[in-house]
Amino acid sequence: MKTDLPRKVTLTEVGPRDGFQFETQVLPIDVKVDVVADLVAAGLRHIQVVSFVHPERVPQMADAETLLHRLPRLPDVFYNGLVLNERGLERALSAGLPSVEISVSASDTHSRRNVNRSFDAALLQGCGMVQTAKQGGLHVRAGVQCALGCVYEGEVAVERVVTMLTRFRDLGADAVVVSDTTGMGSPVSVKRLLDRLLPAIHPLPVILHLHDTRGTGLVNMLAGLEYGIDRFDTSLGGMGGCPFIAGAAGNIATEDAVYFLETMGIATGVDRVRVAECALKLEAVLGRQLPGKMLRVIQASGKNGQISHCNPPGNG
Amino acid sequence: MKTDLPRKVTLTEVGPRDGFQFETQVLPIDVKVDVVADLVAAGLRHIQVVSFVHPERVPQMADAETLLHRLPRLPDVFYNGLVLNERGLERALSAGLPSVEISVSASDTHSRRNVNRSFDAALLQGCGMVQTAKQGGLHVRAGVQCALGCVYEGEVAVERVVTMLTRFRDLGADAVVVSDTTGMGSPVSVKRLLDRLLPAIHPLPVILHLHDTRGTGLVNMLAGLEYGIDRFDTSLGGMGGCPFIAGAAGNIATEDAVYFLETMGIATGVDRVRVAECALKLEAVLGRQLPGKMLRVIQASGKNGQISHCNPPGNG
Repeated sequence: MKTDLPRKVTLTEVGPRDGFQFETQVLPIDVKVDVVADLVAAGLRHIQVVSFVHPERVPQMADAETLLHRLPRLPDVFYNGLVLNERGLERALSAGLPSVEISVSASDTHSRRNVNRSFDAALLQGCGMVQTAKQGGLHVRAGVQCALGCVYEGEVAVERVVTMLTRFRDLGADAVVVSDTTGMGSPVSVKRLLDRLLPAIHPLPVILHLHDTRGTGLVNMLAGLEYGIDRFDTSLGGMGGCPFIAGAAGNIATEDAVYFLETMGIATGVDRVRVAECALKLEAVLGRQLPGKMLRVIQASGKNGQISHCNPPGNG
Repeated sequence: MKTDLPRKVTLTEVGPRDGFQFETQVLPIDVKVDVVADLVAAGLRHIQVVSFVHPERVPQMADAETLLHRLPRLPDVFYNGLVLNERGLERALSAGLPSVEISVSASDTHSRRNVNRSFDAALLQGCGMVQTAKQGGLHVRAGVQCALGCVYEGEVAVERVVTMLTRFRDLGADAVVVSDTTGMGSPVSVKRLLDRLLPAIHPLPVILHLHDTRGTGLVNMLAGLEYGIDRFDTSLGGMGGCPFIAGAAGNIATEDAVYFLETMGIATGVDRVRVAECALKLEAVLGRQLPGKMLRVIQASGKNGQISHCNPPGNG
């Protein structure tokens, strides 16, 4: 199933959801508004800005409606929100959000820990939500979490992921998302899944949401590109991961992805320096460094990342 | 020139040289001895342990002779030292080091800044040193720095790198090293270079020394693997980079490389958990976190990195 690399890739920025959600501090809404504005100015057109989850469980997202209300509606910018249950979906519909992500874990253990439901119950619920969302006129990204491995259950069967995503497709999902929630994917497992998934799901778009927990974010993206995948989720500064582990890695950093894709001759329409500048401002608010690599290069160079750091004697 | 992936890869650990050299603090020699012992215990058999440079310019390496004297000589462990001039080579010979690395920058500007010599003068000197080292019975790794791009001069001509390395080969070098000193390489530039270099240098081994400054370390390693390269330099914890830039990235982290190679079914003979444990001890000495990704996973799991972090509600 190897094919020519795409010439152009669409990145969905998930930092305002996947990133902010994992911060120990609740970011002021003004900061959130500014970040989204910066991301739009940098050329990002698909941004996951909120999740509709219980405000007591995830206080970082409690201001979802207010934030959506404050974000400018622009004709070519597509905001998305993650919903994990019917109540969240209702809130998304009420808020007038045009696009939602509905996501179910392939792992029973992860599902029970994450949303307190068995795999079977969560899948049934997810399918119902896809139907409701489509009936409500929403654009639906329907995804599988832990699609490339589970920290509790180990390897996840390709067939399970393919079955879940084709069910979502049959219920009207507009795109499917393969989430490597744990960062356990590898080029081998990405390709093994896509070998089965792409013929089954064609022509529905497949989006890869790859966490960089183990440093394999870009190699896994490359594996996807080699299979013709042209939609990826990334997060500014590589935000995301777990706030209780210092230095834990989140998604592929948007600016690192753009840089890498540029070196491959693949266009994104995104200005990576502007994304990095936004992430650097955010570092100042958070009081800590984010994991993205290009941030440090751009910070040191004050330019476009081509002029790098000092070279002390003896550098090999 | 694409070929089957190698089944087995040899990693040369460069942390004790490329890493320690860039730390602002001079590490106590007992720490250095312990780190090298840990690396050997983890299965690494090729370790660059010192550079012979002027002790006033690089005080971190001033104890090179003492360190070599204290390291156990083991029949299957190969220690290597970097030498940048004749004086350094003399010191390596006197210290009884069996293997040296002689390295010249492909960039005139970088050469002038790094070793205060023009490209032409540095290449002439490097060639002389390769001859002297071979006459002295040493194993010689001969390398080109900035082989995949220069922060001052931009793109580096493939022909220049190939010419330099074939000259080293003609003078008796035992292996050649392509150093992406700046981390500006990409899968495209790695393959462009190897397309020309491999036929020209065959059957001499080619080693890739890839910095992860821009996050492309592993994608570049993968490009090398796809061309049959089976020797790479890595550094525990991803040490290296510039001590004057917080968070600046160094080499590919050894434990991340081993993890990635394992996922590809490629053997290294290296126990990545033991390498990570060594790097975690070093973090305690340094008082800061190193950039390697698996360090955080292994630290959080206390196991082999397969069981990962907490999953707060709403993780997608």
